[in-house]
Amino acid sequence: MRVMARPIAACGLGLLLIALAPAPTGDLRGFTAESAKVQLEWDAKFRAIPSPDSLREYMRRLSARPHHVGSPYDKDNAEWLLAKFKSFGLDAHVETFDVLFPTPKERVVELVAPTTFRARLQEPPVPGDPTSSQQTEQLPTYNAYSIDGDVTAPLVYVNFGVPADYERLARLGVSVKGAIVIARYFGSWRGIKPKVAAEHGAIGCLIYADPREDGYAHGDVYPQGPWRPRDGVQRGSVMDMPLYPGDPLTPGVGATKDAKRLPVSEAPTITKIPVLPISYGDAQPLLAALRGPVAPAEWRGGLGITYHIGPGPAKVHLRVKSDWSLKPLYDVIARIPGATAPDEWVIRGNHHDAWVNGAEDPISGLVTLLEEARGYGQLLKQGWKPRRTIIYAAWDGEEPALLGSTEWVEAHADELAAKGVAYLNSDTNNRGYLDVGGSHSLEAFINDVARDIDDPETKLSAWKRAQLRAIADASSADQRQEARQRADLRIDALGSGSDFTPFLQHVGVATLNLGFGGEGGGGIYHSIYDDFKWFTTFDDTSFVYGRALAQTVGTAVLRLADAEVVPYQFTAFGETVGRYVKEVEKLLQEKQDTVRERNRQLDEGVFSATADPREPSVAFAKAQANGGAALAKPEVQALNATLRQSERALMSASGLPRRPWYRHQIYAPGFYTGYGVKTLPGVREAIEQKNWSEAEQQIAATAQALAAHTSVIGRAAEQLEKLGP
Amino acid sequence: MRVMARPIAACGLGLLLIALAPAPTGDLRGFTAESAKVQLEWDAKFRAIPSPDSLREYMRRLSARPHHVGSPYDKDNAEWLLAKFKSFGLDAHVETFDVLFPTPKERVVELVAPTTFRARLQEPPVPGDPTSSQQTEQLPTYNAYSIDGDVTAPLVYVNFGVPADYERLARLGVSVKGAIVIARYFGSWRGIKPKVAAEHGAIGCLIYADPREDGYAHGDVYPQGPWRPRDGVQRGSVMDMPLYPGDPLTPGVGATKDAKRLPVSEAPTITKIPVLPISYGDAQPLLAALRGPVAPAEWRGGLGITYHIGPGPAKVHLRVKSDWSLKPLYDVIARIPGATAPDEWVIRGNHHDAWVNGAEDPISGLVTLLEEARGYGQLLKQGWKPRRTIIYAAWDGEEPALLGSTEWVEAHADELAAKGVAYLNSDTNNRGYLDVGGSHSLEAFINDVARDIDDPETKLSAWKRAQLRAIADASSADQRQEARQRADLRIDALGSGSDFTPFLQHVGVATLNLGFGGEGGGGIYHSIYDDFKWFTTFDDTSFVYGRALAQTVGTAVLRLADAEVVPYQFTAFGETVGRYVKEVEKLLQEKQDTVRERNRQLDEGVFSATADPREPSVAFAKAQANGGAALAKPEVQALNATLRQSERALMSASGLPRRPWYRHQIYAPGFYTGYGVKTLPGVREAIEQKNWSEAEQQIAATAQALAAHTSVIGRAAEQLEKLGP
Repeated sequence: MRVMARPIAACGLGLLLIALAPAPTGDLRGFTAESAKVQLEWDAKFRAIPSPDSLREYMRRLSARPHHVGSPYDKDNAEWLLAKFKSFGLDAHVETFDVLFPTPKERVVELVAPTTFRARLQEPPVPGDPTSSQQTEQLPTYNAYSIDGDVTAPLVYVNFGVPADYERLARLGVSVKGAIVIARYFGSWRGIKPKVAAEHGAIGCLIYADPREDGYAHGDVYPQGPWRPRDGVQRGSVMDMPLYPGDPLTPGVGATKDAKRLPVSEAPTITKIPVLPISYGDAQPLLAALRGPVAPAEWRGGLGITYHIGPGPAKVHLRVKSDWSLKPLYDVIARIPGATAPDEWVIRGNHHDAWVNGAEDPISGLVTLLEEARGYGQLLKQGWKPRRTIIYAAWDGEEPALLGSTEWVEAHADELAAKGVAYLNSDTNNRGYLDVGGSHSLEAFINDVARDIDDPETKLSAWKRAQLRAIADASSADQRQEARQRADLRIDALGSGSDFTPFLQHVGVATLNLGFGGEGGGGIYHSIYDDFKWFTTFDDTSFVYGRALAQTVGTAVLRLADAEVVPYQFTAFGETVGRYVKEVEKLLQEKQDTVRERNRQLDEGVFSATADPREPSVAFAKAQANGGAALAKPEVQALNATLRQSERALMSASGLPRRPWYRHQIYAPGFYTGYGVKTLPGVREAIEQKNWSEAEQQIAATAQALAAHTSVIGRAAEQLEKLGP
Repeated sequence: MRVMARPIAACGLGLLLIALAPAPTGDLRGFTAESAKVQLEWDAKFRAIPSPDSLREYMRRLSARPHHVGSPYDKDNAEWLLAKFKSFGLDAHVETFDVLFPTPKERVVELVAPTTFRARLQEPPVPGDPTSSQQTEQLPTYNAYSIDGDVTAPLVYVNFGVPADYERLARLGVSVKGAIVIARYFGSWRGIKPKVAAEHGAIGCLIYADPREDGYAHGDVYPQGPWRPRDGVQRGSVMDMPLYPGDPLTPGVGATKDAKRLPVSEAPTITKIPVLPISYGDAQPLLAALRGPVAPAEWRGGLGITYHIGPGPAKVHLRVKSDWSLKPLYDVIARIPGATAPDEWVIRGNHHDAWVNGAEDPISGLVTLLEEARGYGQLLKQGWKPRRTIIYAAWDGEEPALLGSTEWVEAHADELAAKGVAYLNSDTNNRGYLDVGGSHSLEAFINDVARDIDDPETKLSAWKRAQLRAIADASSADQRQEARQRADLRIDALGSGSDFTPFLQHVGVATLNLGFGGEGGGGIYHSIYDDFKWFTTFDDTSFVYGRALAQTVGTAVLRLADAEVVPYQFTAFGETVGRYVKEVEKLLQEKQDTVRERNRQLDEGVFSATADPREPSVAFAKAQANGGAALAKPEVQALNATLRQSERALMSASGLPRRPWYRHQIYAPGFYTGYGVKTLPGVREAIEQKNWSEAEQQIAATAQALAAHTSVIGRAAEQLEKLGP
């Protein structure tokens, strides 16, 4: 369910660009000069393998029928994927879990006053698009994990439905207590909208795609163009995933047959009020029936009406009822055992389940993973032996709640903590620029990879093209200069929205999330129109960007699996954390304008939390530069074991306040953003909420994590120095 | 036809706020201590007179029927106004001119491909609004001074139709050569749109009000709310007034019976291509039929469609034919002769003609002028004798082209150059804040007046309320601090858009333009819905802001007419010109990025043009502060004669490049903005066009004007010093 890129020019936040820098020297980070030479040969052999035709045929098969969790074709796809991995010569199996996944039984949205109108809640088939007519197999339009409910109440328009919107409503004297709210998609992850509405006393929630963000305002609608048509609906989960993702009934443990389960009534991540998503065609009569204050200018959307806030006179009846039975998950796992260090794991994943046919989300990403696996099969036949173990995973149940990846990570948590070197995720792939987000210890590494990938349209490197985009999109002269001159392009911090979350934020495995995108656009996200016809008409129609992603991620996995020393680099991490600290200081200063007396103390606390991490990382970098000539085997394994602990050191055992599942002290999805990252989350969110005592505690906790990280890097530097030249 | 305030929050440019400062000391600028005491009594008596009930009844009568130039009710209103002035005891007469004013005979807009649609071009009557049904008397929807034409061509959407939009089109590879363009209102004065379209080869032009700027996007439409309904149309002139306003056939001279006239075919201010305005209801099918590139994000309006640019496949047939006969103008002129200095004139004007019923534009302003005149009638009966001559003018023909004021100014140019002390204009009046624009030599004066006016809703002074607004609207901390601390609130420079233009920019009489506004809003500008019903339902419904404007302008006229020494103040003028010079320097620097080699020379030229005007103005201010005790009569008249020359010194005999009618070297409407002011226009527009040699010439001309102005002020300072205490 990778977050849908906002189809607006220069969608800065969504773009996680990779790194600029000096031309590659032939040296490979983590390799000796000797082994680098061999590696570069394997890399080149690998990159010749991925084929656009294969990608197209995989997609045709995998997206041929609706394949949501629990559907026959979901299982069928898993079996087909298993057979594919095996046909490539890989050891593979299916791992099964049983999870709570509600599917809709009753859905009603109707205007009952001042006039009447019954919402269609149905996406019509489109002539010439064969899969759009598979209505009997399609999951109806709904928001998964909405509580059952049947409510009738005045309607209130709440813009995006984020906390700031409710502050504005309060200033306008409008309360949502006892009301049904209608919110636009965008402005937050969708699950935030019913959560914040319920916090303010609303008893129901509708979410619609306004054409200003997601429809005709951007271009012609499907099938004339790629954008969302009048009756298109964005399905999606509204579970409270900022609390914890995965099966609501088995937090922290794998949802195996015999796992201990909460009763559904006690599952804290199910919404407090009923929710349904609707199309802008269905939303228009409801919004047009509102009176009360005219919506503030920024709240007005693209419908040809005056946007009023209400409450009423529009009165709405909302009814939602789901089948709350457990459904099976089928994670398909392939494994290439490591020749030298089988207990060091490089993991690569992309989900296979979709809301409906899901050609773009997730199949456009999954097919690249499959093509990478085919490539490894061929290399193995040519004698390649990866140093570490490589695990390839096609996750089930990502759309509802990162179910397949979370349950698998929870089931294998101890092993992952000991063995996990890196997790590489993708979710969708489109035409455009390489986007990367992840752990900053991998920033330099992935910049090096991107320098070796050809952009299929320009014949520049993928890295160079990303740099040019970063220069063009820079919002200040400083940013522009940095994009021109910094050795590496920055990668963005990860919030949530895909399967990397349990790896990074629950067990602390260094993570990368990769994909191409940013050119073209469309409005089929989580609708029946996300299908083979749409993708091959409007997106990466020749699959050359699919090939580029397979080459990028495949090369990264190869190098991570083969490097003698894990190619982490901590200088960028230290620098980046320093930037986050500055941001938090600035935030604090802004809040200080209102609450001055608590300043100094906190301020100093924040400062002290920042001092440490840079120096040891410089020492490590120096040792890394000097060492790496002749690496004795047991010492190298010990060094790598230390390095694997570096990301883990950033976790706290007790996790973040009120959400212990999230343990990473540097990266987390925001409690009120859902997908959007909050860096230094404990400190930042406490300051945002003006909870000063919690801010102090969190400063201590963050400082402790940074100190632990520093100490791990110091130890690694020492080990590295002993290996010396 | 005062420019319609853009109904968007904080419409900075439109708001010409008046001055903040130390509490009034009892001293009155230009009066001796003795005469100030008497004056303050007359002021207070005057301000007790204006009555909301009178204003309401004047408006009811004057807006009862359509009264455009040449209509029976236009003449009827003039006769009624004449009778009114006389009933107040004033000497009054009607002054007549004969001018070219085309009225529509044929109007066709139709889509002829790929489907067909014929535009309605008609505003329907609204139930409950009696005057909206006077269809036989209403001037049809059209743009006056469009050339006749009958063209059929592909349509191209050009956004606002300003030069920057055509640069964008060029980058998109779209040409308008041979096409009919459709532009949104706003973004420039309307006459700019067909002018720029013709410059780029278009053969026809449609202008429509998009609901994003002017319709349901802002609120409920008439009659449910104040905003423009689906079929509402903005009439208006498209004459090339930045060249010269007034009768196209008699540039520079009064359009009297026997004036020498150009043939219509040689009149340079008539458009080069046919133009018609249409409603958004009529525009929607045309825009929806366009294909070609999707319009850039900022170009998209509020209609529920995808905005494409074209050209075509939409093909449009446009036909315009007018009655080009001369029409009579009736300027109603009242006069109160000066007791001491009859050859020093204070002139006050507001137009009386409208596009249709015109309750808001212009009657809401005109009724305040009439009520001021009633007040003077009463003061005269109580023994008040103004020192100078006061002239009250109700202009005809402002809407088509500032006809009545321009012809009158041209007919009396020599007299005005010798006798004009100040011209005070209004055009409409609404609820809200006092807006002032004008000559900066009157900035301090009008700030003092505003401090003595009560805001009707808050009981703060009008000045204080304007200050609070300036603080709230400040776009930077510096601006906010200035609004808090500067003695006077700044007034804005005047471009064009109302009858002040010939006074200020053609003959150089110091000018003020005043009105309240900025609260509420609406979309009836230049439509049949601008009527008594609308105004008394949605605007200054109790006419208390009408009373406040009569009190403000009336007090200003009283003081200007009675002050011993004309109350100019030149410090603010010098400071303001210094700011303009800085702006132009910055503009030059920006242009220098592209054309560096011409820098230094121009740069130095610009600097040298700025040095002079401040010092003599300080000397004058000092002398003004010291003097003013016992003022001997002939010497005072000589001083005032010198002062009257100060604004005139800023004129150049040859005028601005390519438009000699515009002579003021500091203020002019922009050649490509139409209403929007360009300060230091000769220099600024040359730099904007990168015409470096012209920029050099204009620097010399501007420097000469500023030097002349400085020399006048120096002479005035000497005269003042000789009178000394």
